[in-house]
Amino acid sequence: MAITPILLSGGGGTRLWPMSTPKKPKQFLALTGEQTMFQMTIDRVSDRSRFAAPMIVAGASHIEHITAQLAELSIADAHLMLEPCARNTAPAIALAAFACAPETLMLVMPSDHVIADNAAFQSAIDIAAPLARNGWLITFGISPTGPETGYGYIQSGTEITPGANRVARFVEKPDATRAAAMIASGDHVWNGGIFLFRADAYLAASLQFAPEMHAKCAQAMAQAKHNENQIHPDAESFAASPADSIDYAVMEKSDKVAVVPVDMGWSDIGSWDALVDFNDGAGDSRILEIDTSNTLIRTDGVRLHIVGASDLIVVASGNDILIVPRGRSQEVKKIVEALKAGPS
Amino acid sequence: MAITPILLSGGGGTRLWPMSTPKKPKQFLALTGEQTMFQMTIDRVSDRSRFAAPMIVAGASHIEHITAQLAELSIADAHLMLEPCARNTAPAIALAAFACAPETLMLVMPSDHVIADNAAFQSAIDIAAPLARNGWLITFGISPTGPETGYGYIQSGTEITPGANRVARFVEKPDATRAAAMIASGDHVWNGGIFLFRADAYLAASLQFAPEMHAKCAQAMAQAKHNENQIHPDAESFAASPADSIDYAVMEKSDKVAVVPVDMGWSDIGSWDALVDFNDGAGDSRILEIDTSNTLIRTDGVRLHIVGASDLIVVASGNDILIVPRGRSQEVKKIVEALKAGPS
Repeated sequence: MAITPILLSGGGGTRLWPMSTPKKPKQFLALTGEQTMFQMTIDRVSDRSRFAAPMIVAGASHIEHITAQLAELSIADAHLMLEPCARNTAPAIALAAFACAPETLMLVMPSDHVIADNAAFQSAIDIAAPLARNGWLITFGISPTGPETGYGYIQSGTEITPGANRVARFVEKPDATRAAAMIASGDHVWNGGIFLFRADAYLAASLQFAPEMHAKCAQAMAQAKHNENQIHPDAESFAASPADSIDYAVMEKSDKVAVVPVDMGWSDIGSWDALVDFNDGAGDSRILEIDTSNTLIRTDGVRLHIVGASDLIVVASGNDILIVPRGRSQEVKKIVEALKAGPS
Repeated sequence: MAITPILLSGGGGTRLWPMSTPKKPKQFLALTGEQTMFQMTIDRVSDRSRFAAPMIVAGASHIEHITAQLAELSIADAHLMLEPCARNTAPAIALAAFACAPETLMLVMPSDHVIADNAAFQSAIDIAAPLARNGWLITFGISPTGPETGYGYIQSGTEITPGANRVARFVEKPDATRAAAMIASGDHVWNGGIFLFRADAYLAASLQFAPEMHAKCAQAMAQAKHNENQIHPDAESFAASPADSIDYAVMEKSDKVAVVPVDMGWSDIGSWDALVDFNDGAGDSRILEIDTSNTLIRTDGVRLHIVGASDLIVVASGNDILIVPRGRSQEVKKIVEALKAGPS
């Protein structure tokens, strides 16, 4: 049976502000090349000999972006699961699981990650699929490139099959010392939020470990409205579901959880700093740099003229200009918070 | 006889780009307070018991700015000498001199300088006026605040009257070593381009030292068209005049030149760095700074959001954003040149 890609399209649009906003979060932006990250995610699973038509779990307010970006790729068979409100990943995936046949292999993926080496990803899927068919909940473990403190970590336990291990433990975002120790240990990978499991395995685990969420999502889907390729779960039932991540609600509690480590050039583009490795706006006639070094300069409109600056990030979107030194772009959230709070 | 203020309104609008442009050079911008530098210059000589109605020598393309800004000050008696083309300061002042009665005391001032201590300026005028009436060409010498290499210097010679000395020599923009030596000597001041002399004294000197310029300006004024408060010199004659500065053409050649040193909080606002000492946009709701230090942030439209930057100048005007470290804002001319050259 083909694998069904489940794209999670959430995100508050704060970390890559001002280009990314709640109305158009980063998966819908072409930040790393000509395609948006949503489109690259769709593209990655577009081989219909391997993958069934994808299901996109998204907020209703993003329908237009999704429809337009699928059309650009000539993808006509996608299903849209439209969340009436945001309830984090565990309920979002539950909605999708209820909509799938029980034995469906669900490949759950955020739609705003970059994976440079798709062949490595496909090989990891090949390793994971037989285990998933046997009822394992698989998480793909990202080969860490440094002691990042912004990610969750997964410790590999005993081997199940070559390339797949039991999960020994999940570690929440660590401090720098713990992160360095885990990197040094050699048996920890990052939790990238990419999963493979049977729909019935996920629902069985959520029934066991998150029964209220399971019940509310079941009810939301029982009362769902179907409209061509769109599924609209019942808003009241879904709103009553506890909000929780799949990691907390299910993965960390089940004992049939495996990790398949994979080194695939992954990035969640979690800040403007992460984009320094990609093209830097070179060739954009709206950008003039003289005697600059190590800058990341992006604009969607205004002209940016920079002389003599180094290690600087400048991002212009519409009427908003962000200026922050490299290495500090995580702090953009301070701006977003200050703007939400209103004029001081 | 009252002193007639002669305001020179030239400037290419490059040093404070992007806010300052050839269409609206810096004298017409309110950069240091609520008034523009042009208005502050007019205001400085608005006491009609001391000063006659001002004459403004300006490019015809700036009539609208001048008219509007005079109206805001309720100044109705100004005369406008409209240059058909730019020929530097010596011919501009000659046009004005030909329009004045011979014994008129002309107080020639750039219209884009800041003078914080007007009382000191007025006292210096009081020192200079009796000498000017006796035929001296007076230049006001700015008390230097450091070994600047961007200004011309004037060495004071023997005293003529208290507070006024013969000019020993003019020194063009020096290198850093010479500038430091002149500052150390204690008898050098900056050439601020502010002058006081009788109209006939200036014309006599220009006849002697710059006869072709004198002749062409005389011809341009003989054929000038007068229209209410506007004087339009003949374009063809004026275009035929050599272009030169008053310093080169007249002041450095005459031997009846005096300097009146004055410490009056002068600045020519020659770069964005010079504006750091003035208000920094504080209170502008379009500017959000978090954890910044020593920045100069200005905008006339877009919103600027800056986190964690220090020693940075950011200026937004319309669609153009300038970003340059403090201390390097002179290099804005590189941008203006690159933009003139067009896309590379």
